[in-house]
Amino acid sequence: MAFRHCNIIGLGLLGGSLALDLRQQYPEMTITGTARRSATLEAAAPLAIDGRPVFTHLTSELAPTRDADLVVLCTPVQTIIEQLGQLAPVLALGALVTDVGSTKRAIMNAAATVLPPGVAFIGSHPMAGSDRAGLSHARAGLYRGATWALCIPSGAEEAAVRLSVLVDAIGARPLAIDPETHDDIVAMTSHLPHVAACAIANLVLGSVYDELVLPFIAGGFRDTTRIAAADPTMWRDIMLTNRDRVIAALDTLLTALSHWRTAIATGDGPLLDALLATAHDRRERLNAPCREKA
Amino acid sequence: MAFRHCNIIGLGLLGGSLALDLRQQYPEMTITGTARRSATLEAAAPLAIDGRPVFTHLTSELAPTRDADLVVLCTPVQTIIEQLGQLAPVLALGALVTDVGSTKRAIMNAAATVLPPGVAFIGSHPMAGSDRAGLSHARAGLYRGATWALCIPSGAEEAAVRLSVLVDAIGARPLAIDPETHDDIVAMTSHLPHVAACAIANLVLGSVYDELVLPFIAGGFRDTTRIAAADPTMWRDIMLTNRDRVIAALDTLLTALSHWRTAIATGDGPLLDALLATAHDRRERLNAPCREKA
Repeated sequence: MAFRHCNIIGLGLLGGSLALDLRQQYPEMTITGTARRSATLEAAAPLAIDGRPVFTHLTSELAPTRDADLVVLCTPVQTIIEQLGQLAPVLALGALVTDVGSTKRAIMNAAATVLPPGVAFIGSHPMAGSDRAGLSHARAGLYRGATWALCIPSGAEEAAVRLSVLVDAIGARPLAIDPETHDDIVAMTSHLPHVAACAIANLVLGSVYDELVLPFIAGGFRDTTRIAAADPTMWRDIMLTNRDRVIAALDTLLTALSHWRTAIATGDGPLLDALLATAHDRRERLNAPCREKA
Repeated sequence: MAFRHCNIIGLGLLGGSLALDLRQQYPEMTITGTARRSATLEAAAPLAIDGRPVFTHLTSELAPTRDADLVVLCTPVQTIIEQLGQLAPVLALGALVTDVGSTKRAIMNAAATVLPPGVAFIGSHPMAGSDRAGLSHARAGLYRGATWALCIPSGAEEAAVRLSVLVDAIGARPLAIDPETHDDIVAMTSHLPHVAACAIANLVLGSVYDELVLPFIAGGFRDTTRIAAADPTMWRDIMLTNRDRVIAALDTLLTALSHWRTAIATGDGPLLDALLATAHDRRERLNAPCREKA
């Protein structure tokens, strides 16, 4: 067992699911759960796997992390940054701190600035999640098969090996990447679709047709806008800590949509054929089973 | 049984699923399936429900419809319009013609122009479908619970009653609507999300990061872009026959995205909070069970 005592801070979908996975894989691990709200702590207390409580300790204070050799911050990005500062004085020498935030540059910079020598920080971003937030949706196996991005500062190589073993143990796929490339890619694969889904949900579900729209909502609309129901605070922090990259992605989309507008406005059938066929072919690749390298 | 002989023209996902439903509901109905491609006819021949063949006749010619009292055009919109002209001379007096096309103004205009007196036309648009096209994905029950929009010209009221009974029998919900309102609403609920999904799929999956993007594709991206894999020809026709309304919807989206861009670029947290919270609340309404009136 690579870690003896894991402190998970923030018991929502990601933190709760991680706790369940860790208890399943490491029955002997000490797991401390930290959450601000007493309702969350009360909901976490009875969680058990094979008759064994998931959480060894539950607390609303950051102090108990003095004993932890692994600290995982599972709160929204701006909160992660604040908590890094609060944790700095109480972390044990040799502890490894990581997080599950969806943007990485701001978090890596904060960690490099505030954490003391002797404490390693590795930024994590597991590509798992859902529009369903909160501990009540947490489940073992959430991370299975998901890419788990790791931003590893120089000097943290030994810690990265231990963290990779833990990530692999819960079924995720560790992938080292630098924070700049990470933030650039997720701006396109995640943040851009999120803005589009929210904008469409707001337009259509707030349209003048009101209730008349509902019977015309089918699977396509539901799929396209599903992530708009995700946690607003989490997403506000993502947008604010990846502003330049989200703006760049949004600008390419605005240009592309203007291109589609011209094709439709001029009734350019061959151009529409080409745009739609390209979209079909590219999206269809994602549906092919076992396409990615194992 | 409201109809004795139904001719389904076009045996893709919608036509094939309709045939399966009709055979299940009406074991005695004569069902003729018409498709251009011999491979489709060969795939349709062995289809059976409870040991009874789904199709009584299969043909690649439009001629057999002379005998049918219900003709359902299940081809792309521009093909429907062409086929209305080809069918006009061979339709039986008293026949009811309908379709399942996703736009209604162009089809209603064509039917009013080319069909002879004594033949009723009602435009249909069942709000069912998928990114998976073709007969191989057809299934009984596809239309269950789905709105089935009906554009009923004056004079077709009696035919509308009979068609509504059939729509109800296969589990769909008939809803009368005028073609203009229909095309306006689906431009927002269906065509706009389709353009956005295709544009995002093209951008991200054709980006400079190429293979590096794939590990960062998670559920949100998959959902948001799923419909981009739909049939390009079907969607080309939809865009071309609803140009003005799709452009109007696209313009509202471009304006909305510019608003988001400003909020992100200026780091306006409270505005982002408001935009994201509105999206959350509006989209969450769709997740509530039994929200719509029964």
